[in-house]
Amino acid sequence: MFRRTRVHDFPRINPVRLLDDLKTLRSFGANGPGVVRLSLSPVDMEARRWLAGRMTDAGLDATIDGVGTVFGRSRKPGPALVIGSHTDTQPTGGWLDGALGVIYGLEIARALDECAATRDFAIDVASWIDEEGTFSSFLGSRSFVGDAIDASLQHARNRDGVLLGDALAQAGMANVPRVVLDRARQRAYLEPHIEQGGRLEASGKSIGVVTTIVGIREFQLCFTGQRNHAGTTPMSIRRDAGAALVAFIARVDAAFGRLADADTVWTVGRIDLDPGSFSVVPGKADMYLQFRDGKPERLHAMESALAALVDEWNVQHAVQVELMPCDGPEEPVVMDTTLQQHIAQAAEAVAPGQWIHMPSGASHDAQVIAHHIPACMLFVPSIGGVSHDSIEDTAEAHIVLGCEVAARAAAGIVEALRVRFDG
Amino acid sequence: MFRRTRVHDFPRINPVRLLDDLKTLRSFGANGPGVVRLSLSPVDMEARRWLAGRMTDAGLDATIDGVGTVFGRSRKPGPALVIGSHTDTQPTGGWLDGALGVIYGLEIARALDECAATRDFAIDVASWIDEEGTFSSFLGSRSFVGDAIDASLQHARNRDGVLLGDALAQAGMANVPRVVLDRARQRAYLEPHIEQGGRLEASGKSIGVVTTIVGIREFQLCFTGQRNHAGTTPMSIRRDAGAALVAFIARVDAAFGRLADADTVWTVGRIDLDPGSFSVVPGKADMYLQFRDGKPERLHAMESALAALVDEWNVQHAVQVELMPCDGPEEPVVMDTTLQQHIAQAAEAVAPGQWIHMPSGASHDAQVIAHHIPACMLFVPSIGGVSHDSIEDTAEAHIVLGCEVAARAAAGIVEALRVRFDG
Repeated sequence: MFRRTRVHDFPRINPVRLLDDLKTLRSFGANGPGVVRLSLSPVDMEARRWLAGRMTDAGLDATIDGVGTVFGRSRKPGPALVIGSHTDTQPTGGWLDGALGVIYGLEIARALDECAATRDFAIDVASWIDEEGTFSSFLGSRSFVGDAIDASLQHARNRDGVLLGDALAQAGMANVPRVVLDRARQRAYLEPHIEQGGRLEASGKSIGVVTTIVGIREFQLCFTGQRNHAGTTPMSIRRDAGAALVAFIARVDAAFGRLADADTVWTVGRIDLDPGSFSVVPGKADMYLQFRDGKPERLHAMESALAALVDEWNVQHAVQVELMPCDGPEEPVVMDTTLQQHIAQAAEAVAPGQWIHMPSGASHDAQVIAHHIPACMLFVPSIGGVSHDSIEDTAEAHIVLGCEVAARAAAGIVEALRVRFDG
Repeated sequence: MFRRTRVHDFPRINPVRLLDDLKTLRSFGANGPGVVRLSLSPVDMEARRWLAGRMTDAGLDATIDGVGTVFGRSRKPGPALVIGSHTDTQPTGGWLDGALGVIYGLEIARALDECAATRDFAIDVASWIDEEGTFSSFLGSRSFVGDAIDASLQHARNRDGVLLGDALAQAGMANVPRVVLDRARQRAYLEPHIEQGGRLEASGKSIGVVTTIVGIREFQLCFTGQRNHAGTTPMSIRRDAGAALVAFIARVDAAFGRLADADTVWTVGRIDLDPGSFSVVPGKADMYLQFRDGKPERLHAMESALAALVDEWNVQHAVQVELMPCDGPEEPVVMDTTLQQHIAQAAEAVAPGQWIHMPSGASHDAQVIAHHIPACMLFVPSIGGVSHDSIEDTAEAHIVLGCEVAARAAAGIVEALRVRFDG
């Protein structure tokens, strides 16, 4: 358990150094206020080489591994806490999504090294490749924990059709070894991240202690009716696939509304009517439905409700609907409760009353790593709840506060690991 | 008025010649069972030259005019009935949409010429260019009646970006004169056409006497909400433009349902959610709404209801909607009632009880010409109500029957015109 050390022995982060590194990283792929730094692109590789250099400056043994992950291994003996996130971005991304957690890790490694009480604490720092899925989501963290990535290496392509394997070869990593989890040494994982939502801001809090990364289900629903002339086909004999889709959404909303709690979300993100013109009654219509929740049993109930709606619809209507799962389901991942306590105690010490427990509605590398070692996440507020957009931002005061809390939590976590390790 | 002539004096069409000509025309641009014959394309021009040749064979003075309309002028003195339609097709069109009416005109000109009682009757035959709007809808009929087409000639482009003026020059028609309506001679217009809908088939009838070509309104409705992460944004604080659009459609359906009669139609043909992905709450959503009715007062009531729904919505909701008219409104066009009677009497004589009065839900050249001379339309059934599709078809028995009715109607119309002319 976390043992309180004396106040003057706490590691102190350097806010100027932290912000300078974040802003330098922002310059690689800067695009207005945002950043375009797609995995393995030339500018992404430039940023990775810069990051490896900063890790080396911090006294870490830095490497860019065989999939592109930048890993800074502490020279100190274990047990080690891994702090990481990602430095690749969305096609038009913001400057903090991922970058924040990586630079926090770098700053925390430096800060602990500069503090007498924590000088021997091992902090390994990671920037996992391709969290955003330019080629294959969570490629770096999946590779690190030993998940099978051969299919990704052979078949994954980016939007331009470039194969992942070719992109890695192009970036000079064809025969570079991959960093893999050393379970004897690396005993816990911390991923600081921007919230990417508006809960902290709405509640006036500064720190989120993540309880769960929610599970996700994605379905395509394809409606098949009869394409017809929009002028000559009376309403009474139409089989309008688009009208069916719209009516079906109302049923989904009603059914999910009955099952949901305040954290449940569902989204129709895309609708395609075929052929998609003023004068043609749509013969086909597709919708893309995603829902997320932190409780596996609620996700299953929602899946069952959706399947029942489809069956019911097809009995009642001439326009038929087919339900097709997209991607594998992502199950909710609970964050390690002991690590959550470390973050909560650090937050309460640094910013009393200014933190909350909350789920992560977004996916993160932590959900991959949590299946192998205890993992936790810390959130800082996103201004306006905006993310995956060039205007994504966080107040500098929150950036600094979040790193202070994370540093204190990291110290506590490693201290507890060392007690257990030695014990 | 129509005076009944003796039975043996009726013009008799030649079914084999009629079907042969239709099938030969089908061979220009044949594409499976359908036809691809876009206005002014090489194959369209080939078909036009063939058609002009068939008109010449029929004793008509045939010309391809300065916009591409094929016009076969009878050498007989007026008054003349113009029978026409179009031989251009949709990008993937059927074989009868337009072609039927043009070949009916050709066959009727021949049949009347071969009948002692109608030998002196003048039938002019037209294939108006570009009814389907490859460059500019109804170009040929608009040019014929003297509507301004200069803007079309200068600015209209096809999907490949080719200017209409360039396409005409390319087809050798840069300095060819245009055929224009001779009001002293051309006193009525008949356009036979496939129904392009399923009413005749559903009612078991063979001939439709068109009462009105319905009016059309087209609107784009743009919903503006807040784009957000679909995982991290609670339902309670979302401003989902797509969800707003779906809810709005239900209101439109309810409001239009209260105003509609059995012939009123409305269609949401296209929906775009932005950015259109599983994981993003749509920040913008567009829908394209068209409605059609034969009564101007109902179209106005629907427009008013739609505007009221928009105002009401914007007061009630954070997601705002903007209503934007697309293209000019098309007002309903009533077919000449005397000409309708001629068709009805001919139908009753040839196929007693096998005809109905009905509106045309689709647009036709007749709506352009009806503003200048009395115009009427006759429909034959479309199998399965299908049109604007390669499988568009009509039973041969219906093709032949429709031409018999049209020929008898044409004889009656010209006879009546001649009585008035002489009188």
